[in-house]
Amino acid sequence: MQSLRLINTGGTFNKRYDPIRGELFVPADDQAVEAAIASMRPNLSLRLSGTIYKDSLEMDDADRAMLGELVAAVQERCVVVVHGTDTMDKSAVAVARWLGQGHGKRVVFTGAMVPFFVDPVEATANLASAMTAICLLPPGVYIAMHGLVLPHDKIRKNREAGRFEELGN
Amino acid sequence: MQSLRLINTGGTFNKRYDPIRGELFVPADDQAVEAAIASMRPNLSLRLSGTIYKDSLEMDDADRAMLGELVAAVQERCVVVVHGTDTMDKSAVAVARWLGQGHGKRVVFTGAMVPFFVDPVEATANLASAMTAICLLPPGVYIAMHGLVLPHDKIRKNREAGRFEELGN
Amino acid sequence: MQSLRLINTGGTFNKRYDPIRGELFVPADDQAVEAAIASMRPNLSLRLSGTIYKDSLEMDDADRAMLGELVAAVQERCVVVVHGTDTMDKSAVAVARWLGQGHGKRVVFTGAMVPFFVDPVEATANLASAMTAICLLPPGVYIAMHGLVLPHDKIRKNREAGRFEELGN
Amino acid sequence: MQSLRLINTGGTFNKRYDPIRGELFVPADDQAVEAAIASMRPNLSLRLSGTIYKDSLEMDDADRAMLGELVAAVQERCVVVVHGTDTMDKSAVAVARWLGQGHGKRVVFTGAMVPFFVDPVEATANLASAMTAICLLPPGVYIAMHGLVLPHDKIRKNREAGRFEELGN
Repeated sequence: MQSLRLINTGGTFNKRYDPIRGELFVPADDQAVEAAIASMRPNLSLRLSGTIYKDSLEMDDADRAMLGELVAAVQERCVVVVHGTDTMDKSAVAVARWLGQGHGKRVVFTGAMVPFFVDPVEATANLASAMTAICLLPPGVYIAMHGLVLPHDKIRKNREAGRFEELGN
Repeated sequence: MQSLRLINTGGTFNKRYDPIRGELFVPADDQAVEAAIASMRPNLSLRLSGTIYKDSLEMDDADRAMLGELVAAVQERCVVVVHGTDTMDKSAVAVARWLGQGHGKRVVFTGAMVPFFVDPVEATANLASAMTAICLLPPGVYIAMHGLVLPHDKIRKNREAGRFEELGN
Repeated sequence: MQSLRLINTGGTFNKRYDPIRGELFVPADDQAVEAAIASMRPNLSLRLSGTIYKDSLEMDDADRAMLGELVAAVQERCVVVVHGTDTMDKSAVAVARWLGQGHGKRVVFTGAMVPFFVDPVEATANLASAMTAICLLPPGVYIAMHGLVLPHDKIRKNREAGRFEELGN
Repeated sequence: MQSLRLINTGGTFNKRYDPIRGELFVPADDQAVEAAIASMRPNLSLRLSGTIYKDSLEMDDADRAMLGELVAAVQERCVVVVHGTDTMDKSAVAVARWLGQGHGKRVVFTGAMVPFFVDPVEATANLASAMTAICLLPPGVYIAMHGLVLPHDKIRKNREAGRFEELGN
C-alpha cells in the first residue's frame, strides 16, 4: 500500500452555506473532503493536511509558493491537492516549477464546480478519480476533473460550458 | 480518447425505494449509474448497456455465462461492470474464464454497499475509481471498491466490517 | 407557548439503511425525528420520548395498550405520535378508546411513506403539519398525512396509490 | 376541501447553485416549492402562482404594492406567500394595509434560511407548517417560521441567532 498525502486548500469543493450571512463560504476545515473519502479511508495509508482554505480566485503568489514548498517537502511521493477550479492551472504550474526536473513525485490537482454539501456527486467523482489515478501514473503534475486525468497543461476549464476539457479539442 | 463500455447489471448500487411496497428494489433501468457519471460523460467516449438487473444474490450461472459472453463480445477493450457486491467475485471469475488467455481486455467490476439514491457518496467514489483505473491498467479482470483497484482474486468483501479489503491482509 | 409531547414509535419515518445486512431497519433511536424538527426546536416547549421502535406491521395489542396508556399518562395535553403508516389507524382507535370521553387531549398521529434518511421531504412535511395543527385543533385523535389533518376515522391509507386520502372521497 | 392559493415570490427558499457563475441565485421558477409540496398536492385544491422572484433584500415598494394587490385580488380566502426572510415582515405589513379591515382572508408568509436545494428540511417544515395552519386560523396576516405561527407583528427574525422568534420574548 503506497502512502498518499491529501492537501486540502479549499475552493468550491469545500463550500458550505451560512444561513446567517445567507451565502456560501470556504470553511477552515476538511469536513467535505473527509466525507467524500470516508469509504476509501480504511484501505489507504493516507495523511490529510488542510491549509490556505480559500476560494482560488483569492489565492495569491505567496499562497502558491507555500503550496509548492509544501508539496515538495512532504515525504509521500503521491500527493493529491483539492483546489478551487478557477486557478487550479496556475497553482499546478507553480508546483511543477517548484518541483523542477527529476523529482519523482506524482501530484494530482482536483476540485469541484458544485460544493460537496450542495450536491456531493461531482465532487466525489473528481476526488475519487484523482486518488485512483495517482498510484497508476508516471511522475508529473496532473489535473483530474470530469473524467479526465491529464498533464496539467493539457486540460483547461471551459468557463462557458462549466466543465474541464482536453486542451486542443 | 479511449472507448469505454459500461455494463450495468443491477445490485445495491442501483436500488431505489418503493413507497408502496415499502422496500428497496433493483429497477430495470440505469438512472443511478447515469446520475453518478453525469459530470464525466461529456469527456468520455462511453456506451452504457443495462442487463440482468438483479440483486447479485439472485444471479445464477446462466446470468454469469451471459455476462461473460457479453464482455467478450463487446468491441471496446475497456469494460466497467456495475454489479452487486455479494457475488461480484464469482462473476469476475466467470468473466475471466470466458475471456481466457491473451484477450487484451481490461475489465473492472465495481458496485456499492449503500444504494446511490440512499446516499450517493460511496457508490460514486467506487464507480469513478473504476472508470479512472481502467484506462491505466494492464489487461486483466479487476475489482475496484473502497479505494482499492486489484486483480479480482486479490480482494474480497469482508462481510462483518461491511467493506472490501486486500486479500491476505 | 403550549407544552408538546412527541412520542416516536418507529415506522418507515425512522428507517435507516444497514449496509452490512443490506436492508432498511427501524433503529432504536430518534435521529430522524430530531433532524426533522431541528429548526423548530428552539421555539417549542417540547419533550421527545422514543418507545416501541417497530415497523407498524409488527406492532401487537400489547404495544397499542402501552401506547394508549402512555398518551393518557403524559402531562402534556398536546401529543404528536410518529408511527408506521400501515397500522396508524388501529393505534389511533386504541388510543381513542384508552382516552375515553371528555379527556381534553389533542393527539395527532403522523408518519411517512418514504424514510427520512432516504428522502426527508415527505416525512418532514407530515411531521411539521402534525406539530402545527395540534395547537389549533379541538380535543380529539387525528391523523396528519399528505396535507390532510382529519379525525382518525375520516382518513385512510390508499395502498394502491401510496398515499393517505379523505375517507368517503 | 378549502381552496388555497400559494404565491411564490422567491427568496432563499428557492435559491439554486449556478456552477458556472459559482453562486446561488433566485430562479424565475417554482421548482423548490413544487418539490416541497409534492406529497400534499393530490389532497389539496391548490393554485400556485410565481411572481417577483427576488431575494427579499432587493424587493422595492412597487413589488410590495403588486403583492398586496395580488393577495387582495385572488379568489381564494386562504393565501400562503413564500418570501425571503429579510423583509418578510415589511411585505406582511404592506399586505395587511392593502387588505384593510374586515377582509376575511387568511394570509400566511413563510420562507427559509437555508435553500431547499441545499438542504430541504427547514424549508419544507416551514411551508408545511404554513399550509397546515392557514385553514385553522381566524382571518389575519401571519408569519409561519421555525415552529411558530403568529400574527405578523408578533414575530421577528433574530439575525444573530439565524432564526425567527416570538416578539417580546
